[in-house]
Amino acid sequence: MGLVVQKYGGSSVADAEGIKRVAKRIVDAKKSGHQVVVVVSAMGDTTDELIDLAEQVSPIPAGREFDMLLTAGERISMALLAMAIKNLGHEAQSFTGSQAGVITDSVHNKARIIDVTPGRIRTALDEGNIAIVAGFQGVSQDKKDITTLGRGGSDTTAVALAAALDAEVCEIYTDVDGVFTADPRVVKKARKIDWISFEDMLELASSGSKVLLHRCVEYARRYNIPIHVRSSFSGLRGTWVSNEPQGDRKVEQAIISGVAHDTSEAKITVVGVPDKPGEAAAIFRTIANNEINIDMVVQNVSAASTGLTDISFTLPKTEGRKAIDALEKTKSAIGFESLRYDDQIAKISLVGAGMKTNPGVTASFFEALSDAGVNIELISTSEIRISVVTRADDVKEAVRAVHTAFGLDSDSDEAVVYGGTGR
Amino acid sequence: MGLVVQKYGGSSVADAEGIKRVAKRIVDAKKSGHQVVVVVSAMGDTTDELIDLAEQVSPIPAGREFDMLLTAGERISMALLAMAIKNLGHEAQSFTGSQAGVITDSVHNKARIIDVTPGRIRTALDEGNIAIVAGFQGVSQDKKDITTLGRGGSDTTAVALAAALDAEVCEIYTDVDGVFTADPRVVKKARKIDWISFEDMLELASSGSKVLLHRCVEYARRYNIPIHVRSSFSGLRGTWVSNEPQGDRKVEQAIISGVAHDTSEAKITVVGVPDKPGEAAAIFRTIANNEINIDMVVQNVSAASTGLTDISFTLPKTEGRKAIDALEKTKSAIGFESLRYDDQIAKISLVGAGMKTNPGVTASFFEALSDAGVNIELISTSEIRISVVTRADDVKEAVRAVHTAFGLDSDSDEAVVYGGTGR
Repeated sequence: MGLVVQKYGGSSVADAEGIKRVAKRIVDAKKSGHQVVVVVSAMGDTTDELIDLAEQVSPIPAGREFDMLLTAGERISMALLAMAIKNLGHEAQSFTGSQAGVITDSVHNKARIIDVTPGRIRTALDEGNIAIVAGFQGVSQDKKDITTLGRGGSDTTAVALAAALDAEVCEIYTDVDGVFTADPRVVKKARKIDWISFEDMLELASSGSKVLLHRCVEYARRYNIPIHVRSSFSGLRGTWVSNEPQGDRKVEQAIISGVAHDTSEAKITVVGVPDKPGEAAAIFRTIANNEINIDMVVQNVSAASTGLTDISFTLPKTEGRKAIDALEKTKSAIGFESLRYDDQIAKISLVGAGMKTNPGVTASFFEALSDAGVNIELISTSEIRISVVTRADDVKEAVRAVHTAFGLDSDSDEAVVYGGTGR
Repeated sequence: MGLVVQKYGGSSVADAEGIKRVAKRIVDAKKSGHQVVVVVSAMGDTTDELIDLAEQVSPIPAGREFDMLLTAGERISMALLAMAIKNLGHEAQSFTGSQAGVITDSVHNKARIIDVTPGRIRTALDEGNIAIVAGFQGVSQDKKDITTLGRGGSDTTAVALAAALDAEVCEIYTDVDGVFTADPRVVKKARKIDWISFEDMLELASSGSKVLLHRCVEYARRYNIPIHVRSSFSGLRGTWVSNEPQGDRKVEQAIISGVAHDTSEAKITVVGVPDKPGEAAAIFRTIANNEINIDMVVQNVSAASTGLTDISFTLPKTEGRKAIDALEKTKSAIGFESLRYDDQIAKISLVGAGMKTNPGVTASFFEALSDAGVNIELISTSEIRISVVTRADDVKEAVRAVHTAFGLDSDSDEAVVYGGTGR
């Protein structure tokens, strides 16, 4: 039996009862003969409460101190979890990100892991301990300051430790049963996916699926660490994310893995751009200089009569104001006519490696939307994904229609169980 | 202008408003030209809440993990305080005990500081920062584990840093105006002491005065660091504790510094001990082997007729059960008749270096108690202290009578102001 890394999110350790339940599960893994490393997030709403406090003392909290503050949350949960395990008669030691050897760059609040040197973890395991590690945090290589990894950072911590320790699997415990073919809150007949490839999971993650973040999956793919996403409230098999199907079940690769949707983006259209070399570059250089990440980009064919074209792109709504301001300032230099901003959009994406060899997929996708009366505003495709932008009001209907059209609906009439606490 | 270490307790930083008020005070010290190092405790009830959580997951929390847990409290307060200072336009950086170079032994929950290597603090100061340091915590020299210093640990952190950084003064900010000639809750006419010697302060601390702990004063005396105890709610001068009177005010050494009382102790009387060599040693070896600290010890003259004597000693009530159990087990080996346990006692102590050269002090002390109708059960003296044990019910009357008899009552009719928040 090898080494297992388990990661528990904040909802799994929201209170003392949750911590005790998780402790039992960890001890079970240890009893089955594994070496166990556990990565844990802050309890329930702790992080939000700390952010609240910070805002009360300072409207714009400084990066270094903000990270120092937030890392208190995992310190609490990891120490309590280690105590709960010891109370069950097993040895456990907790480690901060710094003690666990999670080395990052110095970009506070969204640091990137640049190395993992888990010497103390290895020693603790060799001495028979279960090692509990604070998720979401590390220590900067140059200044030795405490850093945090940003959203989804605990998942990334878990995968990075799994890679550094050459783990068999990285188990991500959450309050849902796994990755679904669509958001079960929107599609009642969404099915749990038994296995999905890294590539398809990456596309789902960047298309709005919230279960795993892109960055974590990317890390797992690079080091070929299988991820098992499962519920901390049940003993059920969840979703395996890996290069090849895992375990005893032979799983055939589906043509389509799932349908994702995203309503967090807005669309900016730059109207009346002279259709000549360098114009698009100037627009996107302006955006990049303001450190704004954009998603889809579409340029229409220019009208021959005017020599002008329109360029549309999508970006997070939170960056909308900044992008508009930046572009307005360069209006005369770039020479476009006007800007249109639209935050009432949704993006719907169909993901599946099978579409590479099934030429009818695109057509079926558009037909399904058309039959549902959903108008398409933008289209963007990759090798294993088709995304469209529609009106935000149409998103639920669109996702359901596509899910049904591609035969993804569950046979069972029972509603999908997701979440164990009602959270 | 030199370097000042300031320490703020939990009641001074109980909420966001408190943190902002403390931040202003710190910035004022910086503006006046000092380099400023701040040691801060956990906010208000944070530590109690963390202890509560620990008890919910494990009845007897393990030392290492308990320390990891508790140190989250200071991490929160120090980061918030640094943010609040930066919000006032001054540079501040927060440091954990480990980052500040507070090196301890490995005795979790009550570690002792064995070295302070404040290289990072010095660098932060030289770069113009205010340095904020977590009180109460350190890192163990051998295992590099996080440790806590036990009760009053933040005061000790402050004094230890002041010594390592060669500070001008260590300012201990609290919710009272300083050290008083008696507990102002008992004696309405208690006076704030302007200056007190290390020696007298040590005796007061070990006699029940709660403002400064013995350990912190001992550390300050060893390195000759003046302590200024003062309120974080007012700008008033508090009490200076040092070798010689400080500042522009010439303060004459009082004959008597103050009256302390302590109701946290119990008395055990070992009845009918054979009055021969080795008997007392056997009793106190038994106590010591159980790691119980005792305070006063009194042996009566043995009755010639029986050759038996009684030995009485006082100890913390919390250790009473353990001491009785340990002594009962050795009853036949030691050969005493019985044990008496009494937790309805109080200790009243008169402290002052002046009593060395004023032979009437002891007599006046006993007369004052007698006039107040207070019976004395045990007496113990040092060079600069007289302590008696009385009934617990008599304690308030006894303290007031002694306070008046030695002319310590304030001339003012106004009640002493202590505390700014009503806490």
